[in-house]
Amino acid sequence: MADLNRQWLLAFRPDGDFDESAFRLAETEIPSPDEDEVLVHNIYMSVDPYMRGRMRAGKSYAKPVEVDGVMEGGAVGEVLESNHPDFTAGDLVEGRLGWQDYAAVNHRAIRKVNPDHGPISTSLGVLGMPGMTAYFGTLKVAEAKAGDTLVVSAASGAVGALVGQIGKIIGCKRVVGIAGGAEKCGYVKSELGFDDCLDYREFGNDTAALQAALAQACPDSIDVYFDNVGGWISDAIYPNLAFGARIAICGMISEYNQMEIELAPRITRHLLVNSARVQGFIVSNFYDQWPAAIEEMAGWLRDGKLVYREDVIDGLEHAPRALVRLFTSKNFGKQLVKIRDWNG
Amino acid sequence: MADLNRQWLLAFRPDGDFDESAFRLAETEIPSPDEDEVLVHNIYMSVDPYMRGRMRAGKSYAKPVEVDGVMEGGAVGEVLESNHPDFTAGDLVEGRLGWQDYAAVNHRAIRKVNPDHGPISTSLGVLGMPGMTAYFGTLKVAEAKAGDTLVVSAASGAVGALVGQIGKIIGCKRVVGIAGGAEKCGYVKSELGFDDCLDYREFGNDTAALQAALAQACPDSIDVYFDNVGGWISDAIYPNLAFGARIAICGMISEYNQMEIELAPRITRHLLVNSARVQGFIVSNFYDQWPAAIEEMAGWLRDGKLVYREDVIDGLEHAPRALVRLFTSKNFGKQLVKIRDWNG
Repeated sequence: MADLNRQWLLAFRPDGDFDESAFRLAETEIPSPDEDEVLVHNIYMSVDPYMRGRMRAGKSYAKPVEVDGVMEGGAVGEVLESNHPDFTAGDLVEGRLGWQDYAAVNHRAIRKVNPDHGPISTSLGVLGMPGMTAYFGTLKVAEAKAGDTLVVSAASGAVGALVGQIGKIIGCKRVVGIAGGAEKCGYVKSELGFDDCLDYREFGNDTAALQAALAQACPDSIDVYFDNVGGWISDAIYPNLAFGARIAICGMISEYNQMEIELAPRITRHLLVNSARVQGFIVSNFYDQWPAAIEEMAGWLRDGKLVYREDVIDGLEHAPRALVRLFTSKNFGKQLVKIRDWNG
Repeated sequence: MADLNRQWLLAFRPDGDFDESAFRLAETEIPSPDEDEVLVHNIYMSVDPYMRGRMRAGKSYAKPVEVDGVMEGGAVGEVLESNHPDFTAGDLVEGRLGWQDYAAVNHRAIRKVNPDHGPISTSLGVLGMPGMTAYFGTLKVAEAKAGDTLVVSAASGAVGALVGQIGKIIGCKRVVGIAGGAEKCGYVKSELGFDDCLDYREFGNDTAALQAALAQACPDSIDVYFDNVGGWISDAIYPNLAFGARIAICGMISEYNQMEIELAPRITRHLLVNSARVQGFIVSNFYDQWPAAIEEMAGWLRDGKLVYREDVIDGLEHAPRALVRLFTSKNFGKQLVKIRDWNG
């Protein structure tokens, strides 16, 4: 056990694109848990697109991280000490534990992880926040159903890869991904079983060309679009909507770094003529339904119906680099940082 | 009874703005009803924003009117002859009867009008398509509820005037209209009982200024926006959304004449951070629920909870002018054309 707690702090609020200099490593004492708190020794931490929003001062769905505050993020670890009856030393837990070795957090910020469901890193991916995002976004927000044509952007990413597989599991007629590069598109088709995958890099920001390619890839139009990226890629979806289409807005990684909102063609007409719906969501809206969903996803995982891929960087000291990788599309699979060895 | 049937035909498909020359008056024989058809002698006809879509060749939620075809539209009239058991001579009926004196239509294109509910012209307004649009759009699509802040554009129009009043009836905390000109805004506040009404003409297409005025008028942000206009006015709504906001897209009169879709700031971020929803709809999605809704609206009308205003032009020969009035914001209240006198 380290004597000190390494913590990544937000050094300043970067404008637009950012690099590793936005973060600063500090060392502090290992905290003691207060009343109702639990002390956790982290094992893996997650790196996710939403973190860009936490670095920004403006209004979002959660409060920003303070400058010189510990970066927020999901992590999985082992309970060392508990001042709440729901948890005991040795429990594996996942929650808002932050970019650090040790966290003393309120019991409400964590949940128990069942190691029988899979490797503990899955609690940050397929059986954690990204998995729940894919599950509820696809089934509850977009209300995907058998017979639908489903399109998902960032299709090889932590969420997108699951969205398409869930679509196939429930009987979608056609599942089409959008991803960056031939390697990712090949993976989406051959490993994940999507019917098709368009490489957005071939279209060089040309919305009209991508729109035409989507029309070809989706001959019966698009019933469901699961949007992870926003921007010009998503603009190409709207002219291809089917009547009654549902769009779930989960993320907008292409827009997170923008300081000014870009102009794009208005979508009013497409929504009106198709009685179509666009719904933004955050997965915490469904928090009370996570346990049942995790069971169902764990079942699909056991049955080989769901596959996933992890992109693990070793060492807490590399956490900022992991986030930069995500925002420069360098990752391939769920981006994780391994904080320490763990045998369990 | 006239010997001939006057009909307004679509002369050509106008690009962008249009005038009365887009229509051509013809005279034909009075038709005979076929099997399952009903012959109706029209009394009032309705003029509505959706008609612009029918004049366009492109994809919409309904097939376009053919060039040289009779203009489509709702009308109310009296049955002269019926070849279907649901209707008999003397019945008052409303439906897709077109811009003409006489129509022979399939029984499924019409519904009976109950004259006890109010003057028969209300079957084209508060107790007809616009009323149902307001009712279902507000209550089912936008799911407005007690305590909400509700904003509606085209607030003095046939639909908007009802949306705000329905909002007050169900207990919305604050109902704010957007309308063009001091006279209409005054009417919206004093006659319709809205809490406030913004005159968009004061903002000269300046979305940022309207956005700031909306922020002042809606101190707790906007839970429901009922959109009748689209364009720059609606752009000002999105930065003012409350968490969980619902937007019903009913129309886009400011965009119907556009040949190219305009650019506007993307709304992704606003939907994402607020878990907000935008839903396009057409009132025919709810057709099976009309009878109960008409009863409820008729009750509110009887109880003086709903008021309405009509803008009636006398004479079928003026129908094109009535539509041009609507698209140049000259009307004040539900735009109707009186085709003939009727005492009932």
